[in-house]
Amino acid sequence: MTVETSEQLTLKILQEKATQLRIDSVRATTEAGSGHPTSCASAAEIMSVLFYSVMRYDPHDPRRPDNDLFVLSKGHAAPILYAAWSEAGAFPREKLLTLRKIDSDLEGHPTTLLPFVDVATGSLGQGLSVGVGMALKAKRFDHSGQRIFVLMGDGESAEGSVWEAAQWAALEGLNNLCAIMDINRLGQSQPTMLQWNLEIYRARWEAFGWHVVLVDGHSITDLIAAFQTAARVSDRPTIVLARTVKGKGLIGIEGLDGWHGKVLDKPAAGKVIVALESQLTGAAADWKPNLPPAPHSGSQIHANGHPGSGLKPPYAIGDKEVATRKGFADGLAALAKGDPRIVVLDGDVKNSTYTEEFENVAINRFIEGYIAEQNIIGMAMGLAARGKVPFAALFSCFVTRAYDFLRLAAISNINIKIVGTHCGVSIGEDGPTQMGLEDLAMSCAEPNFTVLYPADATSAWRATALMAEHSGPCYLRLGRPKALILYGPGEQFAIGKCKVLRKSDKDQVLVVAGGVTVFEALTAYEQLRKEAILIRVIDLFSVQPVDRDELIASARAAGGIVITVEDHYAHGGLGDAVLWALAEERVRAYKLAVREIPHSGKPAELIAKFGISADHIVNAVRSALG
Amino acid sequence: MTVETSEQLTLKILQEKATQLRIDSVRATTEAGSGHPTSCASAAEIMSVLFYSVMRYDPHDPRRPDNDLFVLSKGHAAPILYAAWSEAGAFPREKLLTLRKIDSDLEGHPTTLLPFVDVATGSLGQGLSVGVGMALKAKRFDHSGQRIFVLMGDGESAEGSVWEAAQWAALEGLNNLCAIMDINRLGQSQPTMLQWNLEIYRARWEAFGWHVVLVDGHSITDLIAAFQTAARVSDRPTIVLARTVKGKGLIGIEGLDGWHGKVLDKPAAGKVIVALESQLTGAAADWKPNLPPAPHSGSQIHANGHPGSGLKPPYAIGDKEVATRKGFADGLAALAKGDPRIVVLDGDVKNSTYTEEFENVAINRFIEGYIAEQNIIGMAMGLAARGKVPFAALFSCFVTRAYDFLRLAAISNINIKIVGTHCGVSIGEDGPTQMGLEDLAMSCAEPNFTVLYPADATSAWRATALMAEHSGPCYLRLGRPKALILYGPGEQFAIGKCKVLRKSDKDQVLVVAGGVTVFEALTAYEQLRKEAILIRVIDLFSVQPVDRDELIASARAAGGIVITVEDHYAHGGLGDAVLWALAEERVRAYKLAVREIPHSGKPAELIAKFGISADHIVNAVRSALG
Repeated sequence: MTVETSEQLTLKILQEKATQLRIDSVRATTEAGSGHPTSCASAAEIMSVLFYSVMRYDPHDPRRPDNDLFVLSKGHAAPILYAAWSEAGAFPREKLLTLRKIDSDLEGHPTTLLPFVDVATGSLGQGLSVGVGMALKAKRFDHSGQRIFVLMGDGESAEGSVWEAAQWAALEGLNNLCAIMDINRLGQSQPTMLQWNLEIYRARWEAFGWHVVLVDGHSITDLIAAFQTAARVSDRPTIVLARTVKGKGLIGIEGLDGWHGKVLDKPAAGKVIVALESQLTGAAADWKPNLPPAPHSGSQIHANGHPGSGLKPPYAIGDKEVATRKGFADGLAALAKGDPRIVVLDGDVKNSTYTEEFENVAINRFIEGYIAEQNIIGMAMGLAARGKVPFAALFSCFVTRAYDFLRLAAISNINIKIVGTHCGVSIGEDGPTQMGLEDLAMSCAEPNFTVLYPADATSAWRATALMAEHSGPCYLRLGRPKALILYGPGEQFAIGKCKVLRKSDKDQVLVVAGGVTVFEALTAYEQLRKEAILIRVIDLFSVQPVDRDELIASARAAGGIVITVEDHYAHGGLGDAVLWALAEERVRAYKLAVREIPHSGKPAELIAKFGISADHIVNAVRSALG
Repeated sequence: MTVETSEQLTLKILQEKATQLRIDSVRATTEAGSGHPTSCASAAEIMSVLFYSVMRYDPHDPRRPDNDLFVLSKGHAAPILYAAWSEAGAFPREKLLTLRKIDSDLEGHPTTLLPFVDVATGSLGQGLSVGVGMALKAKRFDHSGQRIFVLMGDGESAEGSVWEAAQWAALEGLNNLCAIMDINRLGQSQPTMLQWNLEIYRARWEAFGWHVVLVDGHSITDLIAAFQTAARVSDRPTIVLARTVKGKGLIGIEGLDGWHGKVLDKPAAGKVIVALESQLTGAAADWKPNLPPAPHSGSQIHANGHPGSGLKPPYAIGDKEVATRKGFADGLAALAKGDPRIVVLDGDVKNSTYTEEFENVAINRFIEGYIAEQNIIGMAMGLAARGKVPFAALFSCFVTRAYDFLRLAAISNINIKIVGTHCGVSIGEDGPTQMGLEDLAMSCAEPNFTVLYPADATSAWRATALMAEHSGPCYLRLGRPKALILYGPGEQFAIGKCKVLRKSDKDQVLVVAGGVTVFEALTAYEQLRKEAILIRVIDLFSVQPVDRDELIASARAAGGIVITVEDHYAHGGLGDAVLWALAEERVRAYKLAVREIPHSGKPAELIAKFGISADHIVNAVRSALG
């Protein structure tokens, strides 16, 4: 009779757990009739070692602030994530069989319906940026001992966003971040670009500033050693490059091509499960979670914000002109002191977005993301997932770069604030490549995004405060030009509410504008008044949700004739938001917007050339009435 | 008296050309009052050596198929690009002073209004992918001796898309591609991430499979040698890492931070120009262009397509169900033989997009782009810029990843065909992260994109052929589920035309649908007919341009009551396209669409749960009439 050492017992437990995770992944996907069991199987030992040996976390309290955190970047391996949490005690095993059903929160790819999923995954290449944001928060802000683990597939390392995240994590020296690449050699449709050329992977990650460990991804011993090594690296993140076999342990399909995203039928699954179950001895039954240590006294993990409700924008009607981006930045800097949750990210444009104002008052909470928009938004998602309120400021045109990240932010209903400056043709001479003309289409399409578009610095300041207070994803659209101050410091704004700027009981047309076109509409109002034509002018401000009640009331008051005017392409912008609000009203509507690819020129020339000037509004009103 | 050697004379000429380029860049930006003279100055020697020594091209015929090609990825250095072509003889120098004016094609960043600009640049990090597409075309398809040069900034190498392009170029062994990085150390708002750490850059590019040459970017001799080395590398692309000084040669601001995107005022510019002009001796006057050799006999550069106008889709009404993605792939494979312009790119989903059918019949024209959507669209842009008709097939949700590339494809009005499969909640169990629900908002926002959304395999086949024939950017939206065949092989489709599927002279409501919801609308028609309610049913097919005339006629015929129904988020989709078309009609409209973040489940369950089923249409009709 041999006596097992404690180490031998640990290995046995972890191997059994890995086997159980395989069983659960096969069983759930076969029951669901779809899913990715082979992508789970290659990661079974990695998951087992992380969840049952390395990570310190409370499986019954996944939101506990000092838990070690795990991001499944290869989201299609969702079944093994669910199995791992279930096996840790988070929920009963039988629930795993509800995978992919309409009334189950165990969706095909992980979403934040589950308390242990911080950010939805399933668009490959996003998880590392999220992990970087979490590691940044733990290290720079919370000074916690948390470790952040991100499990990636090998195929997804072809995504450029992975390298954006990699370079930034190294620059910040995030030694609390450990990525694991499950190198199972097979993509969806064919072998990956680098297959099992681990030395090429090694060279790339080392060149990007990471500590690299190569392991056999099915060796429990190797994996434990790798994570111990990672814990000792003090100046940089670590990646564990794990050579694995797709479908490992699933007899008959181990290592075969053509098995991505395919499930075993019930007889085949039965055989696989019998074989796997025969390896179980019950040794894993006594496993106990490895809870985090109590937070140390200096922890800022629970820092709560106190948005500056007593603060007011500093501009007065009649002041000299101020750009809306300046109003935003002034607001942000003002809020900084009272709300430690607020952090700011920027993409090497802080002297254009004016976020340098925030940097000046809160340098430690300013995060320079360089020219890598995807990682900036991804980091913001990671920061927001654990309680920060990140404002990410970019040129609006380049927010398009990160649209897939916005999409997952929406699915995650995460509390990020995206700020797009320099919108529209009114930026002028830089030309069409620098003009954000589809940012409303992009942001409003996401149904839970709040989208604000202030016309002056006061409303931009207020919009910034509203977004900080609001819980959920937000997009703020800002222009480049300086603008007159329309609203006094005491003016109140609300998400979902517009401002009626000109109104009489003889209005013949309703004109709805936003941003720079509000001033065009006001000029048109003056011109038309001379002709004894009165128009009602609305500054829409809140593009989503839109102020349907006021739009309907105003449209009715103006005889059901509506003109919208916006510095945005015609499809998907402010005009469509208004048309939708009025869809049941039998109005006659005209949409003034940018209808072709624009050009360089002076802002006023471009507003005129592309059909959104006061003259165009005047002509449209005349034509509508004529 | 010293006699100059030919080599000395060459160096002198190139140095003088570099000086002239600096003069022209300063003069034009000062005249314009905006622009990036310091970003031009750091690249003056690079541009001089490329344009006046290395590249073989006809400056009077920039579209000549066998020219060496140049892509200015750092598009903000546009003034030096314009100066270089002018200096080469493409147009008179005085035109440079029209920079950034509304009636000039010398825009703030390069656009395809200029014959020597293949693809618009100015969103950093895109040029390399475009260059990869061009190099791929030259090497794999044309077997031409062309060399492709891409000038990048250092700041832009933080963009992940650069690394997507880098890895792919190495995989393909594109030795005809030479990138140059102008490492001037300074970004817009602060120093770049790596500053002058050239060895880190070297390690990264070598790890990504490139030949690397480090040079002093202001040494004509170094640069000439570097490009000679690049020409001798036979198995991989080369990058020339050029250490430069921002603002080099501009006295007073050389190497200073805070000078990005700032112009010299007239007095300062005057001094700089006087100093630079004092270095000119007239030696460069005798420069002659280095024309390409005549194309060799095997060249396929001029290959023209013959879209298969005689071909027909193979499905008959009443056939078993076929997915629209299958209809697309069948059409593509059918067109392949007759149209050698067509190439296909895919992102490791060829067994889901079914582009493997094209691969099976034209393997050399199938391009596996792996999981790197930005580079796939960028390569397509490079291929299209020089005459190919690239179809890039991705899951529609992941097209969002490349939105910034679509944006520049629109600005370039380039002939790419983007195909997004697996749209909407009707994909089912994979869940929200895999559902394309904003792709119509995204694509229709670009005003020159043609956007087609077929409901059955026949119309998908036809849409594919229409897109191949149409010149300009296109987006094709395709579903996952199998669908009944609605249209016979002889049915004709056109861009901008819808199909009226149910029609009577007693229609009470117009229902406009697309894709899967067409079948829901037809089911609703049958249910309502039993109640003696007749509805007109339109399959929109062409979302942009939309069939305004037919929609207006049908809406009028149906009493001005309109219901739209779509498997897309509510904002920016098919419904908004219809509402806009009918905006002046005083209709009463109801938009059925996905209004919240969806879920995993069975397709039919999800169509019901998220409000776009036949039952919802029936209820909406009743409610509209009630």
